[in-house]
Amino acid sequence: MPDPTAGRRNKGPRAAEAIFDTTLRHLSERGYAGLTIEAVAQDAGVNKTTIYRWWPSKPALLRAALLHARVLDIDIPDTGSLRGDLIALTEQVVGLLTDGRTEPIARAMLSGTGLPDDELAALTRDFFADRLSREQPVFVRAAARGELPEHVDPMLLLDLVAGAVWMRVLLRRGPLPTGFARDVVDAVLPR
Amino acid sequence: MPDPTAGRRNKGPRAAEAIFDTTLRHLSERGYAGLTIEAVAQDAGVNKTTIYRWWPSKPALLRAALLHARVLDIDIPDTGSLRGDLIALTEQVVGLLTDGRTEPIARAMLSGTGLPDDELAALTRDFFADRLSREQPVFVRAAARGELPEHVDPMLLLDLVAGAVWMRVLLRRGPLPTGFARDVVDAVLPR
Repeated sequence: MPDPTAGRRNKGPRAAEAIFDTTLRHLSERGYAGLTIEAVAQDAGVNKTTIYRWWPSKPALLRAALLHARVLDIDIPDTGSLRGDLIALTEQVVGLLTDGRTEPIARAMLSGTGLPDDELAALTRDFFADRLSREQPVFVRAAARGELPEHVDPMLLLDLVAGAVWMRVLLRRGPLPTGFARDVVDAVLPR
Repeated sequence: MPDPTAGRRNKGPRAAEAIFDTTLRHLSERGYAGLTIEAVAQDAGVNKTTIYRWWPSKPALLRAALLHARVLDIDIPDTGSLRGDLIALTEQVVGLLTDGRTEPIARAMLSGTGLPDDELAALTRDFFADRLSREQPVFVRAAARGELPEHVDPMLLLDLVAGAVWMRVLLRRGPLPTGFARDVVDAVLPR
């Protein structure tokens, strides 16, 4: 499978980053129904034909913004151990769900905020498939180091650690103790 | 701390179940802004003064519905082992997030669908605190059987298993393999 993120920084017009950031900000502030290409163009300081040339519809623009916006980007860690890499990934999930710029976007993705359900499902599926394919090297390196038993499913590991952050931060609204990312990872790593 | 669920079945008017079910259905169909006590009363077949007598405001009604509606209820399992109890609890989370009646309510709780953020935070905090207090016997019994090491935090265990279901079902929209609840529990239980 080709890496869907290959060359992502070279895709689209040079103003792409401003367009993506504005798209996600409008989504979280106005919901999907209130998101318009015209308003995004105006706030991003580009002509709306520039947007239409690359992303001919609102769903196409939103999909590109979710996949490529720098604000949602993650660094793929390479700390030398699976434990270190998973803690670094989990800390980034904590960051995304506690930062005032990205937390509303995450909630909008889950709620749909007015998207037809099948479009929302396709968007979130693409988003998380893209993440998983980018996170794959963490598990390839772990397997090469002998840290990952064959019966352990990387997707399940990621669902456990990321899901715990979603639960604690956005649903339970509970305390996020220092070292939460480390505790979460230590609870799921094969011992 | 008194058990907030004590006597819950005896609270409120006899039509409470219909009122709660209608409240949650309207929330998921119309959002918080579209939820009105008048419409709930009409659909539940009660006089609106009946509702106002017990729940004087829309937030008060919604809070009661989330805490006491039978559709969101869980059975606290007592299978004889922590593993069995956690699998039973996780299967109930799977059920709530895949059932067409409850999945929209779960998403509405996360998104707020128009609730002021501090009211939404208070509602979800109360909801999950109530669940945790009801799930407590599972961990008390596990500790008595020697199945729960002192350093293991029940809240963290629950965040991991329930969070994995939220991630897989509502975010990743991925496949839910047979035995997912069991795999999730086996990944987090102390071995």
